[in-house]
Amino acid sequence: MNKFHFSRIKKIQQFILQKKLDCFLILNPTNRYYLSGFELKDVQYNESAGFLIITSNDFFLFTDPRYIEEAKDIFSDNIFIYSGDKFKFIIDILKNRLNIKKIGFEYNFFNYEFFINLNKNFELIPFKNVVENLRKIKDEIEVEHIKKSNQLVYEVFKILPKYFKVGQTEKEIAWFIEKFFKEHGARENAFSPIVAFGKNAAKPHASPSDKKLSFNDVVLIDIGCRFLDYCSDQTRTFWFGDNPSSEFLKNLELVKEAQRKAIEFIKPGVKIKDAYLLVKDFFRKYGVDNYFTHALGHGIGLDTHEIPGINFTNEDLFETGMVITVEPGLYYPEWGGIRWEHMILVTKNGVEII
Amino acid sequence: MNKFHFSRIKKIQQFILQKKLDCFLILNPTNRYYLSGFELKDVQYNESAGFLIITSNDFFLFTDPRYIEEAKDIFSDNIFIYSGDKFKFIIDILKNRLNIKKIGFEYNFFNYEFFINLNKNFELIPFKNVVENLRKIKDEIEVEHIKKSNQLVYEVFKILPKYFKVGQTEKEIAWFIEKFFKEHGARENAFSPIVAFGKNAAKPHASPSDKKLSFNDVVLIDIGCRFLDYCSDQTRTFWFGDNPSSEFLKNLELVKEAQRKAIEFIKPGVKIKDAYLLVKDFFRKYGVDNYFTHALGHGIGLDTHEIPGINFTNEDLFETGMVITVEPGLYYPEWGGIRWEHMILVTKNGVEII
Repeated sequence: MNKFHFSRIKKIQQFILQKKLDCFLILNPTNRYYLSGFELKDVQYNESAGFLIITSNDFFLFTDPRYIEEAKDIFSDNIFIYSGDKFKFIIDILKNRLNIKKIGFEYNFFNYEFFINLNKNFELIPFKNVVENLRKIKDEIEVEHIKKSNQLVYEVFKILPKYFKVGQTEKEIAWFIEKFFKEHGARENAFSPIVAFGKNAAKPHASPSDKKLSFNDVVLIDIGCRFLDYCSDQTRTFWFGDNPSSEFLKNLELVKEAQRKAIEFIKPGVKIKDAYLLVKDFFRKYGVDNYFTHALGHGIGLDTHEIPGINFTNEDLFETGMVITVEPGLYYPEWGGIRWEHMILVTKNGVEII
Repeated sequence: MNKFHFSRIKKIQQFILQKKLDCFLILNPTNRYYLSGFELKDVQYNESAGFLIITSNDFFLFTDPRYIEEAKDIFSDNIFIYSGDKFKFIIDILKNRLNIKKIGFEYNFFNYEFFINLNKNFELIPFKNVVENLRKIKDEIEVEHIKKSNQLVYEVFKILPKYFKVGQTEKEIAWFIEKFFKEHGARENAFSPIVAFGKNAAKPHASPSDKKLSFNDVVLIDIGCRFLDYCSDQTRTFWFGDNPSSEFLKNLELVKEAQRKAIEFIKPGVKIKDAYLLVKDFFRKYGVDNYFTHALGHGIGLDTHEIPGINFTNEDLFETGMVITVEPGLYYPEWGGIRWEHMILVTKNGVEII
């Protein structure tokens, strides 16, 4: 653990004191990693690598025998290893060794199995976004890592257009991008890359297929990597060929203009939903608002999708230190779609495009 | 959807009738995909691509606007799109459109947020492993796909030893393997690959590091890919050099012999925990049982880790059509470890190593 981890855990401990809890239980893998450096990911979506118990003056890891060696490096003796009847063991330790009665837990990441097993023995109190609210304001090191991660995306966008060829498949281009990321030090794609030709670009969440690139076609590419733990995420929409369609040109200009307006608008103290509404209203003026079907963007960091979501329900304010995406898009099932996405850092006076 | 999906959904519908439920709610992404073909994965661990509602004579998808186009191909009109106040919308549709009162849900994959929101309006009844119990018996097509996925692992193990060089890092070898998988048609690694030199091999769950390969060292490699949707998973432990240590040779022989014994023992009708105990007892005879720290294996299919877990608590029986791993291992923090893993199909009379 480094000084960042200690200072983050300290903040959770202050929260515990404030709320008069005996401990806080951290099951969300990204939160666990953010606070302790232990295992950024679970083995698979339904198989946890373990959870943290943070008390007002200490912290512990509960995990299974596979992680003993990794755990020792971080938690020294504060480790409890379960196997066999996991909940019996957990309940016994919490009750009898740690003297816990009142547990705070993560509303957004607690499963029924934990709830139903612990609820019989403890007072359980849900809290929303306790760690996420720390994570949403990035410190200097985090910003530096995010910028480095994002730099790889800029680099791949620089060389990509030269790589496009008639007959290439979406999957081939996606693999070219992933290889570039990995061979430049990234750990993995930050998310399933989107490479969508023609009509496929109308699906905001398209998976790369065996569809072949034709001359004079739309190419929408939405990619990011995880580098130094941090995620990046950018989208560009290209025209491959010499004769861009009028729909492409018109909608590209609208999307880029919407993005410029949003980026100009965002600064600390401004309501988050107003950035979304600004873009929606702008599109409405041109009669295309029904084709903008998703949020304007999202926070990004250790996860690709973090709070804040930039959507019409978000009443919170932008704050200095947030890193968010700004990604307006317009989608037409008949011919395709356009999305343009940058990442920005909210600064004291406005934003910096990173 | 294909005939497999329809017949699987039919089985859930029979379950619904039997249990007198109004519907079953499927949130687990792999189960959702197994039943419908819609989205094998969620966007990230805390962001669902949607859930199925299966009633006794119909089925529906609830998802967000990003998935409209994909969803139409599978569910035609049986789609409900939420945005904004998601649970208000879901509750309204379930109550007033589908006339639902009694909902079965997945004990192992239901989060607190769903539970607390739906619990006020419906009778919620948890069930364990309803879809997982279908998934644990593979049909012919699934076995065929698993074999093809596993074939890529055999191929990479064949060429790997020639690739080992002094100074190569664990990460470089992991990337060589991943590239091989992807360039031979795999969608991705089935799980984070384990490439561990020397002492790192003592961590059953090691992540590839920048550690360099030395002459005369242990190399433990545990890898698998996802090909045609299905996962593979095998481990080998190599000696790189010309002078294998006596610990290496002794423990390798013990682990391989334990695996042989387990594979010989497994057949339909045999208790699952007895396979684990057989190996544990075998190791005990040689005084090394404390160094065998994990389960003997696990089911594998659309997920790398499926039921059944081959461990000392599993009272169930092996059944024809199960595909499982058999992976005894011995781990010594002072020098490293050995694991040897094959995948087997349980057949009418015994097993087939696949």
